[in-house]
Amino acid sequence: MTSASKPQGRLLYAQSGGVTAVINATAAGVIEAARAKGVQVYAARNGILGALREELIDTGKETKAAIAALRHTPGGAFGSCRYKLKSLEANRPEYERLIEVFRAHDIRWFLYNGGNDSADTALKISQLGKAMNYDIRCIGVPKTVDNDLAVTDCCPGFGSVAKYTAVSTLEASLDVASMADTSTKVFILEVMGRHAGWIAAAAGLAGEGADAPPHIILFPERTFDEAAFLAKVKATVERVGWCTVVASEGLLNAEGQFLAEAGTRDAFGHSQLGGVAPVLASLVKEKLGYKYHWALPDYLQRSARHLASKTDADQAYAVGKAAVEYALAGMNAVMPVIVRTNDAPYRWKIEPAPLSKIANREKKMPASFLTRDGFGITAAARRYLAPLIQGEAPLPYGKNGLPQYIALKNTAVARKLEPFAR
Amino acid sequence: MTSASKPQGRLLYAQSGGVTAVINATAAGVIEAARAKGVQVYAARNGILGALREELIDTGKETKAAIAALRHTPGGAFGSCRYKLKSLEANRPEYERLIEVFRAHDIRWFLYNGGNDSADTALKISQLGKAMNYDIRCIGVPKTVDNDLAVTDCCPGFGSVAKYTAVSTLEASLDVASMADTSTKVFILEVMGRHAGWIAAAAGLAGEGADAPPHIILFPERTFDEAAFLAKVKATVERVGWCTVVASEGLLNAEGQFLAEAGTRDAFGHSQLGGVAPVLASLVKEKLGYKYHWALPDYLQRSARHLASKTDADQAYAVGKAAVEYALAGMNAVMPVIVRTNDAPYRWKIEPAPLSKIANREKKMPASFLTRDGFGITAAARRYLAPLIQGEAPLPYGKNGLPQYIALKNTAVARKLEPFAR
Repeated sequence: MTSASKPQGRLLYAQSGGVTAVINATAAGVIEAARAKGVQVYAARNGILGALREELIDTGKETKAAIAALRHTPGGAFGSCRYKLKSLEANRPEYERLIEVFRAHDIRWFLYNGGNDSADTALKISQLGKAMNYDIRCIGVPKTVDNDLAVTDCCPGFGSVAKYTAVSTLEASLDVASMADTSTKVFILEVMGRHAGWIAAAAGLAGEGADAPPHIILFPERTFDEAAFLAKVKATVERVGWCTVVASEGLLNAEGQFLAEAGTRDAFGHSQLGGVAPVLASLVKEKLGYKYHWALPDYLQRSARHLASKTDADQAYAVGKAAVEYALAGMNAVMPVIVRTNDAPYRWKIEPAPLSKIANREKKMPASFLTRDGFGITAAARRYLAPLIQGEAPLPYGKNGLPQYIALKNTAVARKLEPFAR
Repeated sequence: MTSASKPQGRLLYAQSGGVTAVINATAAGVIEAARAKGVQVYAARNGILGALREELIDTGKETKAAIAALRHTPGGAFGSCRYKLKSLEANRPEYERLIEVFRAHDIRWFLYNGGNDSADTALKISQLGKAMNYDIRCIGVPKTVDNDLAVTDCCPGFGSVAKYTAVSTLEASLDVASMADTSTKVFILEVMGRHAGWIAAAAGLAGEGADAPPHIILFPERTFDEAAFLAKVKATVERVGWCTVVASEGLLNAEGQFLAEAGTRDAFGHSQLGGVAPVLASLVKEKLGYKYHWALPDYLQRSARHLASKTDADQAYAVGKAAVEYALAGMNAVMPVIVRTNDAPYRWKIEPAPLSKIANREKKMPASFLTRDGFGITAAARRYLAPLIQGEAPLPYGKNGLPQYIALKNTAVARKLEPFAR
């Protein structure tokens, strides 16, 4: 922005997909940057659905302090959603409705904060805006604990779940180590990552060397080899006295099924989801006879703002701020991505990248990040992962001992359109 | 101690049962207080087993900084054990062996850091010392996340797991709230507490009022009422949009069975332990059709020193220090207990209480702490619980983004006896 004049129109911000410990830091970056330029920010309630339903929130009703507090509040302050727009061909009315809502509220910039699906949606809207002769700039803003976005070096949200996982692995291992003589010998921690083992890999930062936990990491990138797994558990218990295993929820058996669904049945005979840890625990008990414990932190891992990585929180804020700068500078169909310029000391910057290179792509973990036996991470992986969990991001606690998380007023904007009949 | 002369003999410290985020703070309190009096502290490796096996550790080999670092390191620094000595009548040789080891190493004070079993053991050893004409002072030092020790107002270890549980409930609920429109509607957090619902109750501190999470707490003190539970889940989802449930692992069905064992079978047909959450989740899915997620933090909750309560960490240190003072003052068969002198502002002090009033007793949660429907906590419970999670207990983080936990040298003391043949 070289012009000092106030930009015309409003900016719409929406959160998409699974939320994270720092997605609201991105929202703070967006709102604070826009306010600084005199631009009004609306937020869509429950992500893109709020835009379709014309359920918009006027963030201008929030105090400066409330917006600043977003920087340390987990979850999605305006609501998010799991809702993927179909292709333009399959559901053109939805896209047209979005443009209609934008037009009614003079939305000239749309910032969509999500993963590769959301990047695709933002890209399509930018194209349709042109086709419908409506001037709209669409910016994708990166967010995902899965760390699977293309182009960007890492994804805001991942660093914090990585730190949570590494710290939890370390702490629980200290517990197991002190009890192993007479109690639990094998501890299994199940972490998120349906298709890629980035989070599981981060557990590897808890320790280094064969005897340090985690002793075994099970990645979705490697087919589960029961014999090799059991042999390594046994060898570890015999050598170290105990064994910490970190398993990705997406672990597959030789038939390509999720291990979590392959064995366990609940009381109703249904296969039980989200439980690879108990399956592995039963195996260890059955085949090796060791006492086990297992943990499955589920949402705790991605909402643990109390243990966020400073690197991650800073980057989350920075991509929000950059997204506004790009939008107001007239860029379209881009995403602010994180570029690593140095490993140690870690240095990074934000650059725009075309959404067309990000939409619908999935970044896999490089094969070079896994050790030959597939049960650990390499030095290359450590070099990549280590900076992402660095630094703490303190937050204010109340006298009641709880973090002081903000609940926004989320004041609705008056509707101008008829309800959307899909 | 009014005398300025150095006390004669050594002090033995042992950790017992499940470890906590702050049991090592107690160890720090013991060692620092003893060092200040010029008394040498040995620690038993793996709890009472180390005493039986004559596996003793000379804590004098550790630096001042290392002992200070214990104050912020979770787990059991010298190892703990699940091993209950039988009665004097059933296994007198074990007790005699302990006295033999004490005599060989001039152990004149024995500090046993554990729960009600350990209090019983310490009491029995004190009695046998008299019978065997060996001058030994036995002090029980309180520790248990279960908060079920008699006499003491609360137990070191509990406040921190309480804080972890309240904060995790709050954070995960922010996540669920933001996704509920299109995704998870019911989130179930399973917490420890086999026989008493203290930890589950602490989750109630996350929010207050019918619409604030947790909406439902399931206590082992109340038989699981499936119909009432499902009705409340449904009403909550319909009113609030989502529902957070916190369930104690010790939840019982009408037949008096653990719900966790009553339904689920693993791949081998064994009942699966430690999983009341998946059983409840299946029920919610089956009967109400809601999308669910569940979490089971297991050891993560009791080892999370990164989220410890300052109240708890301070009390853990204080009972260690007081135990040494009592021992050196010649007291025997007592435990330093926490006495609450005021609720708000919270004030507490440490006093000695006879082990005979603590050994083998279990403090239940008062019935007045549970709401009439049995799904929540009362104002009385809040008044009791609130101070225990107050204050944060910061710890040093390394440049690598991990807490700087200490690993002691744990230098072995040379043996003087033949191995113990049980």
